[in-house]
Amino acid sequence: MRLAIDAMGGDHAPKEIVLGVKKALEEWSDLHVLLFGDETQIRPLLEESDRVKIVHTTEYISSEDEPVRAVRRKKDSSMVKMAQAVTSGEADACVSAGNTGALMAAGLFVVGRLEGVDRPALAPTLPTLDGKGFLMLDLGANVDAKPEHLLQYAYMGSIYAEQVRGIQQPRVGLLNIGTEEKKGNELTKDTHKLLSSSSLNFIGNVESRDLLNGVADVVVTDGFTGNMVLKTIEGTALSIFSMLKETLMSSMKTKLAAGFIKSDLKSLKDKLDYTEYGGAGLFGLKAPVIKAHGSSNANAFYNAIRQARTMVSQNVCTRMEESMKDS
Amino acid sequence: MRLAIDAMGGDHAPKEIVLGVKKALEEWSDLHVLLFGDETQIRPLLEESDRVKIVHTTEYISSEDEPVRAVRRKKDSSMVKMAQAVTSGEADACVSAGNTGALMAAGLFVVGRLEGVDRPALAPTLPTLDGKGFLMLDLGANVDAKPEHLLQYAYMGSIYAEQVRGIQQPRVGLLNIGTEEKKGNELTKDTHKLLSSSSLNFIGNVESRDLLNGVADVVVTDGFTGNMVLKTIEGTALSIFSMLKETLMSSMKTKLAAGFIKSDLKSLKDKLDYTEYGGAGLFGLKAPVIKAHGSSNANAFYNAIRQARTMVSQNVCTRMEESMKDS
Repeated sequence: MRLAIDAMGGDHAPKEIVLGVKKALEEWSDLHVLLFGDETQIRPLLEESDRVKIVHTTEYISSEDEPVRAVRRKKDSSMVKMAQAVTSGEADACVSAGNTGALMAAGLFVVGRLEGVDRPALAPTLPTLDGKGFLMLDLGANVDAKPEHLLQYAYMGSIYAEQVRGIQQPRVGLLNIGTEEKKGNELTKDTHKLLSSSSLNFIGNVESRDLLNGVADVVVTDGFTGNMVLKTIEGTALSIFSMLKETLMSSMKTKLAAGFIKSDLKSLKDKLDYTEYGGAGLFGLKAPVIKAHGSSNANAFYNAIRQARTMVSQNVCTRMEESMKDS
Repeated sequence: MRLAIDAMGGDHAPKEIVLGVKKALEEWSDLHVLLFGDETQIRPLLEESDRVKIVHTTEYISSEDEPVRAVRRKKDSSMVKMAQAVTSGEADACVSAGNTGALMAAGLFVVGRLEGVDRPALAPTLPTLDGKGFLMLDLGANVDAKPEHLLQYAYMGSIYAEQVRGIQQPRVGLLNIGTEEKKGNELTKDTHKLLSSSSLNFIGNVESRDLLNGVADVVVTDGFTGNMVLKTIEGTALSIFSMLKETLMSSMKTKLAAGFIKSDLKSLKDKLDYTEYGGAGLFGLKAPVIKAHGSSNANAFYNAIRQARTMVSQNVCTRMEESMKDS
């Protein structure tokens, strides 16, 4: 198992990335890593090993870079070099915590699409109250999606849920503004028809207000709506927790109460922390490309590596390509 | 000022509706009301007055009714009769807490569109953390919107914000998945161009995560996205508050703390209660049509009446029609 890793992506790069890699190397003895980035920064963090090779790069793509342009121009960036290692066959999959848009561009232009897939999809596992989580796609790779794209997402998501998350016959839901069959806009109505006549375990429309309750294992939507819903959940949760904090700090009495429930509130907040569920997969590419969260610490990055590893060992990309023939 | 009221719509009809009407009659001496519904239920709740006339109806449209069919078939329903009173000129505006879809259908088919308006929009005022609130439209009247529709919403929303909410030069934002001009799908990119070259105070794209912080006075979006975002905010808030409640009831220690902060938490929850901001306007119709929240109590319904009243006295519909010539 050979993974290519972008050591320079994310808020805590390269330190937390390298620590995550070290943990993964300790865990899996068959793992070999190509680590792309600034060797002078990486070397002190890592012991010599014949299972890890540092490939020095002189550039990196920041979160401010315009994605497509950055991938085209920064040929010696850690992210582009990482993607090229997958294309050349030196690595089986790649993981980066860097610029999401740039990673999508690198995936599309460097790694390339699977045969039969029209558009790749960004697919994170999001939290549910019971801790099981659910897969949602697309979260923003393709903002003007067509019904056929959503059908492809459903197939790819089902395979991932089955092979990586171990869910038998994953329940596939279509994100919509009502549960009735006839609800929604042209896109969701047409997609509903396609999903209904597919071989998937399609459970019908699901509403955004039920997502946190685990209403489906795989939820499909267009990239615009998916991105909008994800940001709305994040924004609302953030607003409520900050209001709550303000309320708890408003008087002696509430401060006292706050002391009693601090750890409980922390665990409540952690339940909604989707970095715990690993990174987001970029589905529909020739090899697994995993986007770890930008704020990844060593443990989050380690989980993203685990995810890439399972996708490789379960042949998820090949299975996805085969499923396109059914779709 | 003559208002037509559907006494049979909403979870607490007719009692809370009639109590809301009584409060409004006490408040405004120039107010005359036509009250549509079951006279045997309404009469005991209301003293005789020459300023209120009960018009007995034998049918009503429930929340389970299929909207368009119900409006076409239930000709003697309180909602349809109420809308007809506006068309005939017996009333200047109407208010209902009943089936939202049916009210939109009654507005469109019975009251009719303003000249120059392609599609009506559902426009509630939503809460912000500072208590000021903001107007968002469309929340679901038109799920397959075009850029020109969103431009019309922006004009109508601005006039409402100025004339009813007293905001000078209302800041108009376009709901999108990023603040940069080039972000979004085809609809938002094209709408951005139209809004930029309009005479409105357009402040650019706004993100859903900033809505509760009052990032704009008027936020425009298509009905599918608007409805999705509203339900996501509601669902997330509900989930967090129920998790919070569970956490607070989990041990003796947390129960003790809960006792200390109970009233503070209640006021936190109230901040997010949009029934406090009155009903949702149906914009683009020949007369003001107000949808009061389905769970309206007397006070919420009274606020919806106030809203209809201000729309009439400020000639909001005429102003909206005039603005269509600029759009």
